[in-house]
Amino acid sequence: MNLDRCCIHTITTKPWSLNECVERYAAAGVKGISVWQNAVEGMTHTQAGELIRKNGLEVVSYVRGGFFPHTSAEERVKAIEHNKKLVEEAAALGAPLIVLVCGASPDQSLETSREQIQVGIEAVLPLAEQLNVKLAIEPLHPMYAADRSAINTLAQANDMSEAIGSSFVGVAVDVYHLWWEPNLEAEIKRCGKNGHLLAYHVCDWKVNTLDMLNDRGLMGEGCIDIKKISSWVDATGFDGYVEVEIFSNIYWQQNQQNFLNNIVKAFIEKV
Amino acid sequence: MNLDRCCIHTITTKPWSLNECVERYAAAGVKGISVWQNAVEGMTHTQAGELIRKNGLEVVSYVRGGFFPHTSAEERVKAIEHNKKLVEEAAALGAPLIVLVCGASPDQSLETSREQIQVGIEAVLPLAEQLNVKLAIEPLHPMYAADRSAINTLAQANDMSEAIGSSFVGVAVDVYHLWWEPNLEAEIKRCGKNGHLLAYHVCDWKVNTLDMLNDRGLMGEGCIDIKKISSWVDATGFDGYVEVEIFSNIYWQQNQQNFLNNIVKAFIEKV
Repeated sequence: MNLDRCCIHTITTKPWSLNECVERYAAAGVKGISVWQNAVEGMTHTQAGELIRKNGLEVVSYVRGGFFPHTSAEERVKAIEHNKKLVEEAAALGAPLIVLVCGASPDQSLETSREQIQVGIEAVLPLAEQLNVKLAIEPLHPMYAADRSAINTLAQANDMSEAIGSSFVGVAVDVYHLWWEPNLEAEIKRCGKNGHLLAYHVCDWKVNTLDMLNDRGLMGEGCIDIKKISSWVDATGFDGYVEVEIFSNIYWQQNQQNFLNNIVKAFIEKV
Repeated sequence: MNLDRCCIHTITTKPWSLNECVERYAAAGVKGISVWQNAVEGMTHTQAGELIRKNGLEVVSYVRGGFFPHTSAEERVKAIEHNKKLVEEAAALGAPLIVLVCGASPDQSLETSREQIQVGIEAVLPLAEQLNVKLAIEPLHPMYAADRSAINTLAQANDMSEAIGSSFVGVAVDVYHLWWEPNLEAEIKRCGKNGHLLAYHVCDWKVNTLDMLNDRGLMGEGCIDIKKISSWVDATGFDGYVEVEIFSNIYWQQNQQNFLNNIVKAFIEKV
């Protein structure tokens, strides 16, 4: 993939400050940055946005909102308030989009959690529309269904986006979560056709995954046919940034500049 | 669930020999045993079957065949031959069923692996029919799609069982693999209606799973609503054994008799 479409999530190079991320990404020819909440430290979101644009980078998304389901109604209200705050932060940052890790509670059914997710998104939506920040439901791999997301397939994310029916709510397609999905090509087509394909994330699935959360692979290192999925995404007309999002205890322990160089190489060759 | 329907997989109490499994299970009031290949050691399969029946237990299944997909045609032929040998062993053991962990190859698409699985099962089927051993496709959780199974939903297992269309090929429903599946109730109904629901496995999904393979929970320890899924399975008319299959580095390190006592308790209270 052409490097002009390359965006990197700050979490990918977690040891770096936002300042370092911005300078190093820009120097490597990367054009976009997705900002994790923890990366904005010691400055306001407005300042963070200025820092990024001053270095010639574009803010692609703010990560991450969600976690709407709770057995307690009070906790659900808190989650909605928290997400509203995130929308304000995203607007200050100049991020056009918030990624939603929707949440799940092990103490209730996935169906109930899904209902609470929809209620939560709809409660945040008016502010999101007002501040021009889109909300992207990220379906998470079924291995996260216990407590991270009750939305585990693109089919389910499409269902919910269609049920909500706003141009401000769509989907973040991540190859890590969805590569195994039975009707993935058709669901990507459906997502694009409805105008709901808002973001596209890449990394790889290592055949011997050592950690369920923090052992994602660099593109090309695993078993996902990323080029094929990219072709499906592009075929919908999507021409936005392709976001590299790698959580990895292994890579975080290595020299981050070398890692960045390898990301750029892999992005050009394997995405 | 009534203990009369309780079956335990030998792998659940891996530190025990088959002899110990048989004696302890029987003494605990367990009625069925599913025998893993590694448990038959120092005796023939015929002798193992006799040992089990002599102690008043029933052989429920032989575990496990499958692993059909390979990029090399030669390896695929070898896999089929291996599975034929397993069918013969199952027949000698007196097992009415072999559980198939169907396999996947990270070096080819899941679609190709699925085609090879179907070819493999159909190649083994004549011998299975001749020796009266059924073949149960076990859909595995999507986190095993890289190299363990390209069949990751009950929907896919139903599709394949229907495509093969033999009364000797069906499905093993395991709550660990399928609890998150979007249309699980409907797929269980479909499976039962077609006469394809051949086996039902239970354990639990721990919210903080430490190991992708060997950290399954005891029933009641995790977030799966096992009673609900059991009610769906029973509603199809299934009245066979309910098989406890727990891989756990944690439990394998503990006193196996205490663990067995806890399994029996959990089976009665939580299944």
